[in-house]
Amino acid sequence: MDSKVRLHIAGPLGAGQDVELTRDQAHYLSGVMRLSPGDTLTVFDGVSGAWRATIDAASKRGGTLTCQEQTAAQRNPPDIWLIFAPIKKVRTDFIVEKATELGAARILPVQTRFTNSERIRRDRLQAHAVEAAEQCGGTFVPEVTDIAPLDRLLADWPADRALIFCDETLSDDPDWAEGGTGTALPPAPAAILIGPEGGFSSEERARLRALPFAHPIGLGPRILRADTAAVAALTLWQQARGDWT
Amino acid sequence: MDSKVRLHIAGPLGAGQDVELTRDQAHYLSGVMRLSPGDTLTVFDGVSGAWRATIDAASKRGGTLTCQEQTAAQRNPPDIWLIFAPIKKVRTDFIVEKATELGAARILPVQTRFTNSERIRRDRLQAHAVEAAEQCGGTFVPEVTDIAPLDRLLADWPADRALIFCDETLSDDPDWAEGGTGTALPPAPAAILIGPEGGFSSEERARLRALPFAHPIGLGPRILRADTAAVAALTLWQQARGDWT
Repeated sequence: MDSKVRLHIAGPLGAGQDVELTRDQAHYLSGVMRLSPGDTLTVFDGVSGAWRATIDAASKRGGTLTCQEQTAAQRNPPDIWLIFAPIKKVRTDFIVEKATELGAARILPVQTRFTNSERIRRDRLQAHAVEAAEQCGGTFVPEVTDIAPLDRLLADWPADRALIFCDETLSDDPDWAEGGTGTALPPAPAAILIGPEGGFSSEERARLRALPFAHPIGLGPRILRADTAAVAALTLWQQARGDWT
Repeated sequence: MDSKVRLHIAGPLGAGQDVELTRDQAHYLSGVMRLSPGDTLTVFDGVSGAWRATIDAASKRGGTLTCQEQTAAQRNPPDIWLIFAPIKKVRTDFIVEKATELGAARILPVQTRFTNSERIRRDRLQAHAVEAAEQCGGTFVPEVTDIAPLDRLLADWPADRALIFCDETLSDDPDWAEGGTGTALPPAPAAILIGPEGGFSSEERARLRALPFAHPIGLGPRILRADTAAVAALTLWQQARGDWT
């Protein structure tokens, strides 16, 4: 049975495999969760499913586990990326957490014309994705990439991947309104692109609309914050085209 | 044209109507937004649409506006309630903000068996709803009710309102799986019920499932946090049955 204490660790995992804990992990198990040698927890490495492990030793200086048996098969999300323009720190953290919970396969911060923040702490965002996977019972951790300018992202775009572009002006524009909301969402491989709080520039919007792989969608009659739009668009896609069946 | 500065004020609004500002509002306009007498902003009272107003006076001691002309008609959301068990402060705030953006008509904190927090600051949550409506360009502010025990809420339940009950165990239970996710969501009047982080108790779940007006739904194969579930369920409902068309 799956323990409530879940830890993402470096692989590989396998029956009888010894696992070295980082100091932080060992402190979390012994100091925060108050587990002792012999206690069990669930571990996963992102590719090998979930495993029951027993603690051999854990203190604030480090520790080791022994991997026992697999308790859940590896479950990867559908091939959906989330591309977003970083906003205020707490909302950026939130987007990474929610995208992980909602089964994004990859999280790509992007720099647009009106992006407030040009730098991100990629390692910190990746740690948020790990923590979200630990919390939500997942066995997969999406990669958080380094921030890239929108131009470069589009120049390198894989031809077979649909780009679902959340266009906050769509509900005002009758030419685009026939697309509706969440209807005719393209299947995987796909990516959802969310703009910054100031929206896309008119040049960016024109360029995005002209791309053959772009699918502009609207998200209802109210203006959504960027973090809300990310959760809403991922939800609609997972329900229509993903693994929510 | 609609100003980017938007303020929810006590009504009634009408052409030529003088409006007294609270100290906080006057300080926000003069001290934070750096507006001066003669500058314009958008005001709304929750029932009369959006109006252009000009500042007559604003300082940190108070101020007045004059309401000029209506710039947007009143737009009320569909009759969908969000009922949720309060969680950690920042996530509770977040749920209220997101429910307002996503067009909930009413927000009802509920106390369940495993609800961590038995008290809420209703006035603070209501202020969050107002701020979210100001930010998202809305003209409607959902009422945040006082927290009520689940039992009492169900005892007083209006017979014609469907209760969409997000059941985190649903994906594991073949008897309920045929309902699927987001399919066959009931139309308005409806309410979405999200449990606390610990889920519903088995007694609560059995009771909810037995209610003739209850519609259990699942939200995909990953465990969602309560705040994620609230946003996801509101999104699915708005797209299927609400005003996202």
